[in-house]
Amino acid sequence: MSTAETAGIPSSSRPKKSVLLSGTPAGNTALSTVGRTGDDLHYRGYDIADLARNCEFEEVAYLLIYGVLPTGQELTQYKAKLAPLRKLPALVRRTLEELPPNTHPMDVMRTGVSALGCALPEKDDHNVSGARDIADRLLASLPSMLLYWFAYSQSGRRIEVESEANSIAEHFLHLLSGRQPSPDAVSAMQLSLVLYAEHEFNASTFTARVIAGTGSDMYSCICGAIGALRGPKHGGANEVALDIQRRYRTADEAESDIRRRVENKDVIMGFGHPVYTIRDPRNSIIKDAARKLAESAGTMQLFAVAERIESVMQDTKKMFPNLDWFSAVAYYHLGIPSAMFTPLFVVARTAGWSAHVIEQRIDGKILRPAATYTGPDPIAFVPIRERR
Amino acid sequence: MSTAETAGIPSSSRPKKSVLLSGTPAGNTALSTVGRTGDDLHYRGYDIADLARNCEFEEVAYLLIYGVLPTGQELTQYKAKLAPLRKLPALVRRTLEELPPNTHPMDVMRTGVSALGCALPEKDDHNVSGARDIADRLLASLPSMLLYWFAYSQSGRRIEVESEANSIAEHFLHLLSGRQPSPDAVSAMQLSLVLYAEHEFNASTFTARVIAGTGSDMYSCICGAIGALRGPKHGGANEVALDIQRRYRTADEAESDIRRRVENKDVIMGFGHPVYTIRDPRNSIIKDAARKLAESAGTMQLFAVAERIESVMQDTKKMFPNLDWFSAVAYYHLGIPSAMFTPLFVVARTAGWSAHVIEQRIDGKILRPAATYTGPDPIAFVPIRERR
Repeated sequence: MSTAETAGIPSSSRPKKSVLLSGTPAGNTALSTVGRTGDDLHYRGYDIADLARNCEFEEVAYLLIYGVLPTGQELTQYKAKLAPLRKLPALVRRTLEELPPNTHPMDVMRTGVSALGCALPEKDDHNVSGARDIADRLLASLPSMLLYWFAYSQSGRRIEVESEANSIAEHFLHLLSGRQPSPDAVSAMQLSLVLYAEHEFNASTFTARVIAGTGSDMYSCICGAIGALRGPKHGGANEVALDIQRRYRTADEAESDIRRRVENKDVIMGFGHPVYTIRDPRNSIIKDAARKLAESAGTMQLFAVAERIESVMQDTKKMFPNLDWFSAVAYYHLGIPSAMFTPLFVVARTAGWSAHVIEQRIDGKILRPAATYTGPDPIAFVPIRERR
Repeated sequence: MSTAETAGIPSSSRPKKSVLLSGTPAGNTALSTVGRTGDDLHYRGYDIADLARNCEFEEVAYLLIYGVLPTGQELTQYKAKLAPLRKLPALVRRTLEELPPNTHPMDVMRTGVSALGCALPEKDDHNVSGARDIADRLLASLPSMLLYWFAYSQSGRRIEVESEANSIAEHFLHLLSGRQPSPDAVSAMQLSLVLYAEHEFNASTFTARVIAGTGSDMYSCICGAIGALRGPKHGGANEVALDIQRRYRTADEAESDIRRRVENKDVIMGFGHPVYTIRDPRNSIIKDAARKLAESAGTMQLFAVAERIESVMQDTKKMFPNLDWFSAVAYYHLGIPSAMFTPLFVVARTAGWSAHVIEQRIDGKILRPAATYTGPDPIAFVPIRERR
């Protein structure tokens, strides 16, 4: 596109060459807007900053799946519904026990959800109430799947996954450490889950919608989305971000090495975004949370490295950190193994994915794009005995 | 679009309103062309009629995955590679044993592939040779997964899934019946697998490509594709086709009822296509095969019903049968339970899916479309204690 052609289009909707279907609408959604002004994010009309600073994850999941922010009473009822759904059916537990300790945690999540779909399949009528029930069960039981497998594969322990925890965030941290997490840790986890909950037609959500478009069941949609999120260009990025940050002992060391890498045209994961053009509005929120966690931990080393790299990337490439960058710092200080970063993203994004599946079903259309053919013109067939 | 605007566009590339992204290119492929002239299908330049009438499924899988039709020697070597891959790792067998007899067979396939991805994960470098090896293992072992689970869940038998069978088609029929299948049955199965092997950017293949675009592994791509194929608007259609055909004892009975249903605007599965506009070129090929199988079986009843409905749909709606319609008749006479129709589609299409994943990786782009927002404008946030 020439400059003249793009002059009237907001920068955020200009197609990016490195992205297929960039800027091309592939359906309707009422769930979120991403980067309309270059740096904003709204879930069902609410600004992400308000939601992240004021809401528990369950409030936001309810907003996405049920359409409105819950009242205090509704939130209490919703949590009371979710708590017993933390339990895993025996079929799922036994399936998870089969998976070896070196299994990729995203493969554990994908297999666990697929097995849950065999244990408690969706009704063929795909009624909205049933779909919401499955979404709720997934939200409640995904942390159980991950940490049941983790404990069993590491030490052969069959842990109790039901707990008195008051929230999904607390449940996760409690299963991970075996201890009651601090209120600050729970708050940071809530905030992170809210930030990761929904992001319009990103690749994993789009996967879920393509699958939903054929009339398939909720579990198939979520399995596909987990598979898409597994990729290093999507959900896998927060793990790589921590690897980068932990390479350096000091901010100065980070600066000189990153400047060298930028000159060599290395890609630094955790920076830039296919939709935002000015900044990722989630960055300042997670950065504040990461700073507080680092202060509480009494060590600013990792945060300082991450912040310096942020400056260097702005200075050299005019690139801004996305949500993944300081999420890595926050998760590190929460004591979360880096292999669980993307699975946590699954827990959060299941709220958005499920809501998109329900939306796509109401839309009722199948997704079937065209392809640009780059192969040979028709070729005369040669029988096998004549091939050389 | 007005008629004037569409006058110069081949009818096959006119967007269909019931399909999202219809006619919109979402990437490049050298694997196939679908309906360029309204009724043609080519795999890598070869006409589907030549491939279906002359090739074993393994030749076509090799063409799609390795890029060329194999010589006689290459085909022999390829089959020698595939045969031992029929064996299932213990982890996969035990996972399949957990799945109850009433599990949806597509959920079995999805879970089996996900478990295989845990047992034998793809290397992180995603080299093409390794990706082809996984494609080959899936092609060889998908029939094993389905029929191992079927035998175990139905009767508690742990069947031997390795066999001396000379082809995937023969292996499947042998595991299903426990007997050596007739050469005619094997030929019909070969032909059916060739016809189902590849179809450009259909919804399941597109799912695999969206997942591949994030840099995810081959198993995640195939799991997602299986989930998409499960939907009744996609792979599930051939099962529904048989349900329709078996409703009627005679062609006359079928005609009067279908005319009534068409007047009531009922949708008849197995007719029409999102891309073909004149006819589905696979129909006459599978119809011939279905006719021969019916003649051998000595009963033309089902074929006659299917053929009469074909005439009625042409007469009343100008709609043509797609591949699913007479596939249902052929599979019925091959003694395949209708619940296995879509899983057989998985076996065949895994050749195309895998080839598309490899292509998408070479392309290197992520798929991230835009959405049309239909939700509310920004709303002021209300804290939970003030919500009513």
